[in-house]
Amino acid sequence: MSDERPVGVFDSGVGGLTVVGALERLLPREEIVYFGDTARVPYGTKSRETVTRFSVENIEFLMRHDVKLVVVACNTASSLALGFLKKCFRVPVMGVIEPGAKRAAEVTRTNRVGVIGTNATVASAAYEKAIRRFDRGISVYSRSCPLFVPLVEEGWTGNKVSRDIAYEYLGPIKAKKVDTLILGCTHYPLLKDVIGSVMGPGVALVDSAREVAKEAGLILDAGGMLNRSSGRKRHRFYVSDEPKRFAKIGERFLRHRIECVKRAG
Amino acid sequence: MSDERPVGVFDSGVGGLTVVGALERLLPREEIVYFGDTARVPYGTKSRETVTRFSVENIEFLMRHDVKLVVVACNTASSLALGFLKKCFRVPVMGVIEPGAKRAAEVTRTNRVGVIGTNATVASAAYEKAIRRFDRGISVYSRSCPLFVPLVEEGWTGNKVSRDIAYEYLGPIKAKKVDTLILGCTHYPLLKDVIGSVMGPGVALVDSAREVAKEAGLILDAGGMLNRSSGRKRHRFYVSDEPKRFAKIGERFLRHRIECVKRAG
Repeated sequence: MSDERPVGVFDSGVGGLTVVGALERLLPREEIVYFGDTARVPYGTKSRETVTRFSVENIEFLMRHDVKLVVVACNTASSLALGFLKKCFRVPVMGVIEPGAKRAAEVTRTNRVGVIGTNATVASAAYEKAIRRFDRGISVYSRSCPLFVPLVEEGWTGNKVSRDIAYEYLGPIKAKKVDTLILGCTHYPLLKDVIGSVMGPGVALVDSAREVAKEAGLILDAGGMLNRSSGRKRHRFYVSDEPKRFAKIGERFLRHRIECVKRAG
Repeated sequence: MSDERPVGVFDSGVGGLTVVGALERLLPREEIVYFGDTARVPYGTKSRETVTRFSVENIEFLMRHDVKLVVVACNTASSLALGFLKKCFRVPVMGVIEPGAKRAAEVTRTNRVGVIGTNATVASAAYEKAIRRFDRGISVYSRSCPLFVPLVEEGWTGNKVSRDIAYEYLGPIKAKKVDTLILGCTHYPLLKDVIGSVMGPGVALVDSAREVAKEAGLILDAGGMLNRSSGRKRHRFYVSDEPKRFAKIGERFLRHRIECVKRAG
């Protein structure tokens, strides 16, 4: 049995491509339909109600492509809207919080975990709650880092300014002596070097993309929905604003060329 | 004769309140209806087509409040969409580029003017074109400063990071020996101290809010649309996302409390 329907992935913009990259590596037989809401990006400064409304619209778009699974690749949307979204649609909907939280709970030795993300993600306490579901004995310290996303989009991922900003944000978390730090926003893996140099070699950085891909594989397998055909896969990328800029910035996230980006809506 | 219809002002978010403040000071008899598109902010990284579509929707909203004049307080929307918007509506529509450009052309002694703004504003070359319409002999040097808006929204307007970022962005413009710098984004006046200290005391900073209010007064006067009644004015503020955050951040721009912010749409 082989389910050749595509996997749907959406993000507020370009960051979710880190999840697409992990899906490509772990589930190379799956076809992906990606939607990046580049006309309304970012989500991280917006309210639960607005992010939920946008997320419903994004999944409705993916459903029109007959997806078998929806991956909410955006940490903010996962934090604010996942429970509601799971109830709304007839296909399984998964987010990025649980996989990242689970991984952090496995990795920590000292039971002290840090979380960084957008204002909305941190205010929602979604990671704390998820980590405590795995292990109530873990202490979680979180901090929003709103300048990290524009830093990445500016391409300033290794200069003096990026290091200064990282020190400013991460100092208080480092002082809590965490041994694990969750990069709770899909843009942050691009700042891994700077973040790692501030936190020091003793701190493990958890980037949830790989964990998300693993969980997607489990869900597809459990539902008898894996694609077993070995034909060439052609992913489709849709955005709500100009495709060109997405394709250009997206290559930094996906680490290969992006063909065929179309404007949706 | 007195035209008591309100003046409509829209911006991508909160920044247009600097224009509202100037209107309050210069035209205290006018009532204002403000729309901040906080669900879709920012505009400065988005395409002409998308920004134009959003702007049309915003003005349609203001028109439902029977405004007599529309002020496009957003530099990006003014740069990308003003010509189109002027043709679409039956009330006068004015932007922030012309007034700022005119002021800069008046102020410069060396005929070397700098412009800073969002990616979209700078790419459009709207300020260059407007300045050259006033004086073809002026050389214009522009630079996009995408991190300035998130810096202001983070409240980092005087720390080391903000100074480092300002040096990085403004260094090349300073090297051009401009004597006038247009703050081509409604957020930038909040960074005036940092920008001024980098550019030095010999450089005049042009913040277009006051010039915009002057031009609005001229248009209203010319059209016989000034409000001459002296009753108490009650402005109305609408946003497309959560009103509370807008009211809180907005007070830093308007420098007084904002009452009665409502969600639109």
